[in-house]
Amino acid sequence: MPASSPDTLRREIERCRQLTDAVLLDPRYRDRFRPEHIRRAVYAYIERPAKRLRPALLLLCCGAVGGDEQQALPAAAAVELFHTWTLVHDDIIDNDALRRGQPTVHVAAADWALAEFGADPAAAQAYGRDVAILAGDAQQAWATAMLLECADRGVPASVVLGLVGRLQTVLNHRLIEGEMLDVQLSYRRIESCREDEVLQMIRLKTGVLLEYCAAAGAAIGCRRLPGEDPVVDALGEFAHLCGVAFQLQDDILGVTGNEATLGKPLGSDIREGKATVLILHALRHASVAQTAALRAALGRAAASTVEVEAVRQVLQEVGSVTYTSTLAERFVEQALARLRMVPASAPRDLLEAWAHSMTARTA
Amino acid sequence: MPASSPDTLRREIERCRQLTDAVLLDPRYRDRFRPEHIRRAVYAYIERPAKRLRPALLLLCCGAVGGDEQQALPAAAAVELFHTWTLVHDDIIDNDALRRGQPTVHVAAADWALAEFGADPAAAQAYGRDVAILAGDAQQAWATAMLLECADRGVPASVVLGLVGRLQTVLNHRLIEGEMLDVQLSYRRIESCREDEVLQMIRLKTGVLLEYCAAAGAAIGCRRLPGEDPVVDALGEFAHLCGVAFQLQDDILGVTGNEATLGKPLGSDIREGKATVLILHALRHASVAQTAALRAALGRAAASTVEVEAVRQVLQEVGSVTYTSTLAERFVEQALARLRMVPASAPRDLLEAWAHSMTARTA
Repeated sequence: MPASSPDTLRREIERCRQLTDAVLLDPRYRDRFRPEHIRRAVYAYIERPAKRLRPALLLLCCGAVGGDEQQALPAAAAVELFHTWTLVHDDIIDNDALRRGQPTVHVAAADWALAEFGADPAAAQAYGRDVAILAGDAQQAWATAMLLECADRGVPASVVLGLVGRLQTVLNHRLIEGEMLDVQLSYRRIESCREDEVLQMIRLKTGVLLEYCAAAGAAIGCRRLPGEDPVVDALGEFAHLCGVAFQLQDDILGVTGNEATLGKPLGSDIREGKATVLILHALRHASVAQTAALRAALGRAAASTVEVEAVRQVLQEVGSVTYTSTLAERFVEQALARLRMVPASAPRDLLEAWAHSMTARTA
Repeated sequence: MPASSPDTLRREIERCRQLTDAVLLDPRYRDRFRPEHIRRAVYAYIERPAKRLRPALLLLCCGAVGGDEQQALPAAAAVELFHTWTLVHDDIIDNDALRRGQPTVHVAAADWALAEFGADPAAAQAYGRDVAILAGDAQQAWATAMLLECADRGVPASVVLGLVGRLQTVLNHRLIEGEMLDVQLSYRRIESCREDEVLQMIRLKTGVLLEYCAAAGAAIGCRRLPGEDPVVDALGEFAHLCGVAFQLQDDILGVTGNEATLGKPLGSDIREGKATVLILHALRHASVAQTAALRAALGRAAASTVEVEAVRQVLQEVGSVTYTSTLAERFVEQALARLRMVPASAPRDLLEAWAHSMTARTA
């Protein structure tokens, strides 16, 4: 059976999104969050339109082992919540102003302090940061509480305890390690950053969460934890490898993509001087003239559109785009090898299409 | 049987501390935390000398219902970890520089960036904040992972799941509410802050955690969750009420205490203009001249020792110290009424002594 068509995959992801959102946005959770500013901050991102790829991955993997997706729905909502708290805290750390086209939580909450307390700008900024720290803390707890609800839907207590345990050890600690490595890389001269360090950071920041989603969905579906069933582990590794490919493609699109579909300014990685596989390759292989073009824009927030465009050209000429794109394809191939260990089924075909979409996407 | 003597209580708390620390500081956890800066930040506070009152409370309540304290030890370590992550994040929010006599996590980590990355002061400060945010996030997860370990010691899965659930909903969300109310009170004119609001904030910030400790210890001891056993609930309420008394006494000691045993500058609440029950009482009852003395120091970081001493005198003259102290005693009495619902035992006598120590303490 061939991979499902991109259209079939899109419809399936949308179906999963609706199922997940019915749990995630169930009004009965709202009253838990007080006072009002915490509630607004907790709901800010999850109420904005999003594809919910992680919940969809979890539900597909549950289906791929013949599981009951109704039992897995709280877990699907939980991984989205877990992803969300990391976004809220990362946005403080990265000083980002926009998320899903609207103000980040810490920026929005600073405005609440200006409007409601008449705080001065510095105090308002501090208030915004405080609300965002605490809202992320509340969301992390909510994620776990949501996962526990699987027990109410018939998932055995031992499976739920095992999944909560992995959430609080492997997933939490490795994600935080990845975020910390990302921060530390930004403090180093870009020439001193190695490709293997960047790939490790991507594995921790992106791969580990997708691995958790897939393995959790499969574990709920077949009632065996990661390490207890080769199919659960294969699906976890499959998703991890796809995650790395996704991030590599993301880095390419950030430079060569379309600003409108991207939702953020083209070349922001270049202006930040971010160590990506793409840029590190160019720095290793550029001629003297090409290096000069790279240097003119890398790490300069004020770099002009022309200067960023010159970098984009160098990345093409040197072969850095092709190199990164080939690397991403290799991760997808490795992922598909893992997927072949999973018995054939309609959800497996959808996962195959999902893997191909990592590198086929243009936004 | 009378309450145990303060000396017996002190020895028992120290015994519980040693039992808890053997779990908390077990070297097998250290490798979970990477990179090195995260590990140092995660361990910073828990490696400093502390009484570990919360673990002791949990273990005493387990004993008071006839439970096996060995089964409760991971929970004792878990509540200390839960307390610790809130300290790490609160210290960022409150811009505090010292904790247990040494630099707070965000201040220490800023120094690491100065020393190791040669970061400029502003970048180092941002780095310190980032490390502290992520370290607290990791500690929150560790707390839950630690609580799960009770299942390995024979506590039924249903009790563990129930306690994890309450940790992630009631405890997390109410503590965050309390911290947020504390922040919001600091943005308001002190005259607009009401005593009932301050008491509610104290209940959420201090009472709810102690209630959780006591109820969790009892639940593990008798294998019935809060809401399923009146003794579990009575012990929870007992601890909650003691927590409020503790905080009221803390506010008194912060103004009238001994700087050496207090470990922080006398009168910092006054210089911060913090709305405490003590200060709000004085503002309500002061004469014109007394109000002038209060105003001269309240909320002025630069207030002199003489000005702070004048406030202390006003707090005595107006009867605010007596008022607050009487209120604290009333909370202890209410707590003791709850304790009488618990069958007599040696641990109950220790809990009685602990309740009296809330207001008897001078440091």
